Amino acid sequence: MKSLATYSAYLESALQQDHFPAQPANLYDPLRYFLQLGGKRMRPMLSLMACKFAGNDMEKALPVALAVEYFHNFSLIHDDIMDAAPLRRGQATVHEKWNTNIAILSGDVLLVKAYDYLASYDADTFQQLFKVFNRTAVEVCEGQQMDMDFEQLSEVSESAYLEMIRLKTSVLLGCALQMGGIVGGAVQKDAQLLYEFGEQLGLAFQIQDDILDLFGESAQVGKQIGGDVLANKKTLLSISAKRAASPEQLAALQEIENTTNPQIKVERTQKIYTELGARAYCEAQMEYHHNQALNALENIELPNSKAELIELANFLFTRAY
Amino acid sequence: MKSLATYSAYLESALQQDHFPAQPANLYDPLRYFLQLGGKRMRPMLSLMACKFAGNDMEKALPVALAVEYFHNFSLIHDDIMDAAPLRRGQATVHEKWNTNIAILSGDVLLVKAYDYLASYDADTFQQLFKVFNRTAVEVCEGQQMDMDFEQLSEVSESAYLEMIRLKTSVLLGCALQMGGIVGGAVQKDAQLLYEFGEQLGLAFQIQDDILDLFGESAQVGKQIGGDVLANKKTLLSISAKRAASPEQLAALQEIENTTNPQIKVERTQKIYTELGARAYCEAQMEYHHNQALNALENIELPNSKAELIELANFLFTRAY
Repeated sequence: MKSLATYSAYLESALQQDHFPAQPANLYDPLRYFLQLGGKRMRPMLSLMACKFAGNDMEKALPVALAVEYFHNFSLIHDDIMDAAPLRRGQATVHEKWNTNIAILSGDVLLVKAYDYLASYDADTFQQLFKVFNRTAVEVCEGQQMDMDFEQLSEVSESAYLEMIRLKTSVLLGCALQMGGIVGGAVQKDAQLLYEFGEQLGLAFQIQDDILDLFGESAQVGKQIGGDVLANKKTLLSISAKRAASPEQLAALQEIENTTNPQIKVERTQKIYTELGARAYCEAQMEYHHNQALNALENIELPNSKAELIELANFLFTRAY
Repeated sequence: MKSLATYSAYLESALQQDHFPAQPANLYDPLRYFLQLGGKRMRPMLSLMACKFAGNDMEKALPVALAVEYFHNFSLIHDDIMDAAPLRRGQATVHEKWNTNIAILSGDVLLVKAYDYLASYDADTFQQLFKVFNRTAVEVCEGQQMDMDFEQLSEVSESAYLEMIRLKTSVLLGCALQMGGIVGGAVQKDAQLLYEFGEQLGLAFQIQDDILDLFGESAQVGKQIGGDVLANKKTLLSISAKRAASPEQLAALQEIENTTNPQIKVERTQKIYTELGARAYCEAQMEYHHNQALNALENIELPNSKAELIELANFLFTRAY
């Protein structure tokens, strides 16, 4: 996907510039480090694309794109503390490389600095962007709290799970697109449809993540297969499998959950989830939200080509990138 | 001080209202709890006073006052984690009563919600307020980082220490006053002088805090006397004492620092700091910044009475409130 590389290179060169003061080094060095770990830059790329699609130069959306990327990285730095994660993109997390206090505080200041980028637009645009951004920021926090709460629950309903991933993941994709659309000059209705495109794409993307975690090729996923199963994490797969299970199958699921050999545990889970139709159900759900995303895009009445956004939407579901 | 009680009652009734959704309870219950622990509400009160002084009703500044109070409480929740503090205003801190993850995340969402209040003004006012607020928010984080860094240093200069307390404490008082002035209709120059009034007041206030911690009456200070000394914390007292000491006195200071009996340690420190003139030096510095604050106020050309702000400035230095 050639055009994606153009956006990506532009973003990467903007992000590799040093945006932080030298001092206090313990506050800003972790941010320099973390922001340069890379990543797909999917969210800021969506802002640039939406801006261009709405009829403006992608450069117009750079501040919005950086605000979204800063926010996303703030949430990763704090989530990594909460998950006690040692690694992020194969490198030490901030709380591991420095310490928890520094990770809390540098995350805080990164969130504050995200707002600065929004304020670089004129006052009216700023207030419009701010409303989308701040509602999203609250929702992402709520989604993260729901995710932590779910760990303590024995059962989570499908609707509660979908609401959690919508808040934790999807709304920020929607926000990135809507804000890009706004600074690109899209009318309110179209900016809202861009939001829905992103929200549905995010849901499809997260469901795909659940499926790939158990059924992907290790090389394709980039991490150990079955991580969610080994951590007894609730996913759309586990929720739909449990729902479809007979009393005997429920007992079998319970037995598998207590299995200590990781390889056997993963293989047996793959088998029973497939038998129970959970894999097929999740694939259908992923397809559904993917189509919903494309429908939202279709309803936008702008004359400009949607090819790039459609290409990106399809591209996200190959996971080669 | 009667008028102070009016502001205080108005603020308290606004803060006792429930500003948060019911769910997720683990995200919002900690905020309901923490915001109702009380406190002097000094910062939001300054916003209300500045607004009234600039010629508007105090009610006009309520959103600004709440933004400042939310920001202050966000920073307290996160600072309490960093300091591993079990108590705040005599009650369990959020990370103690819930856990660290919840304290991080509920602090995050409180910061996000502070911005919402600023956005409740018209777009131009919002952008003006935002610039003051966001610069201050960055500075408070920088001050907290400097404070943590100082714990690892064997020596801290007086200028570095003053810069740390300016960032960690004073700028938010300045910000509260400047934003109150802006929504009250003060011209830029006067709003800036209100900021300086708060900044200097904050410096005087923090230096007084250092003095009271060692030389105050326990009942007046509301905590154990000599807490800073027992924690070997750097303060303006310890920095100026060290600077004034001869080699023999430096050795004596070192010996006192290694004393294990807390009562003896505190008494000997009080004695040597007084002999070295550190106490007198700090009192003079406090006086200096207090006067600088009053000078800034004097330079404001508004015809309205400054009595209330002067009264508050003097009142803060009786610590009866």
